Amino acid sequence: MSGPARVRMSPDSRREQLLELGVRLLSTRSLDELSIEMLAEAAGVSRGLLYHYFANLKDFHRAVCRRAADDLIEVTAPAQEGDALERLARSLDAYVGYVEQNYAGYVSLVRGAARGDEDLQAIYEEARAALTDRIFDTAADDAGVLGVFTLTDTPAVRLMVRGWSAMCEDVVISWVRESQAGREAVSRAELLAMLAAALPGVLSGTP
Amino acid sequence: MSGPARVRMSPDSRREQLLELGVRLLSTRSLDELSIEMLAEAAGVSRGLLYHYFANLKDFHRAVCRRAADDLIEVTAPAQEGDALERLARSLDAYVGYVEQNYAGYVSLVRGAARGDEDLQAIYEEARAALTDRIFDTAADDAGVLGVFTLTDTPAVRLMVRGWSAMCEDVVISWVRESQAGREAVSRAELLAMLAAALPGVLSGTP
Repeated sequence: MSGPARVRMSPDSRREQLLELGVRLLSTRSLDELSIEMLAEAAGVSRGLLYHYFANLKDFHRAVCRRAADDLIEVTAPAQEGDALERLARSLDAYVGYVEQNYAGYVSLVRGAARGDEDLQAIYEEARAALTDRIFDTAADDAGVLGVFTLTDTPAVRLMVRGWSAMCEDVVISWVRESQAGREAVSRAELLAMLAAALPGVLSGTP
Repeated sequence: MSGPARVRMSPDSRREQLLELGVRLLSTRSLDELSIEMLAEAAGVSRGLLYHYFANLKDFHRAVCRRAADDLIEVTAPAQEGDALERLARSLDAYVGYVEQNYAGYVSLVRGAARGDEDLQAIYEEARAALTDRIFDTAADDAGVLGVFTLTDTPAVRLMVRGWSAMCEDVVISWVRESQAGREAVSRAELLAMLAAALPGVLSGTP
């Protein structure tokens, strides 16, 4: 007997598909609004089936956040061409694009992490560390030169690069919120230029 | 008949005293750990009496956070002497001192705000706005000159000054955490110099 005509997905690809759907749902709503019921409806499957893939709501949220963080790291991967500063500018452009497209979910990841949810905090910290490490890796490709600035890997510089990434997060979230509310007083190009220029600026007082 | 020998406090000063005690308790524990019971025990009064001053735990937390934010704004008030950059440096010094002395409570205010508690968020945003406005006021006293930089009040500059304050918050919280764990790799003086230098640095790319 031949199998059923309906395509059966392997458990792994089915889980993949559900995660992608979860991330998509998260782009326009916060984590607190993202329920198993909502996913079941959007996927056209039963809640029971979902509990086959995710033990509970917390496990589902964690998996979706992990996927969203991986997506963020992937889309902001620096280009291969250009000097370190150009590559940084392109990463920033992708970061702003990511926050624009995933505003609600991104804000709720940042907040979920701040709220002290240990799993979300670990995912968030990992993503931030990956983005920060990348600054050093990108600069290292150009012998540490970032524009007019040479990046030396010291605890003080690490601390300030991390601070710069906190600044970018705050500024980009504010900018996207204002922009999506139709109150854009700063253009996207200006925003990108300011953030890129701020990195050597933030480091100008390091010993 | 004369009144009792025991000094009776007016309701206002009693509430004052309880708030100060609340802020003190908050310096070594998070908001979630700060209960009405704990306050009652520390104040040596009954829980019933406390409910006379604070309707419920949420009301108590809100009042304590409001007081903590007011304290922060007060202790970081810029000195009258010196040029804008020196006065900014002294404010930063006081800010680091405040976070050092109130680490647990300060972090929980920041987190409580991020968690989406609307009251805490409003208090936090007000404190941040006050600290940001002050940068403009201080610079204005020196005709907008901040070190080598002239501060012009535009939406782009506002956005980046706010970003600088998010950076300071992140960097100072990290630094105090490491320092209190005995892992201080950056001296306090270096930290202060870096944060002050970062302000004109952050603004270097503004149009």
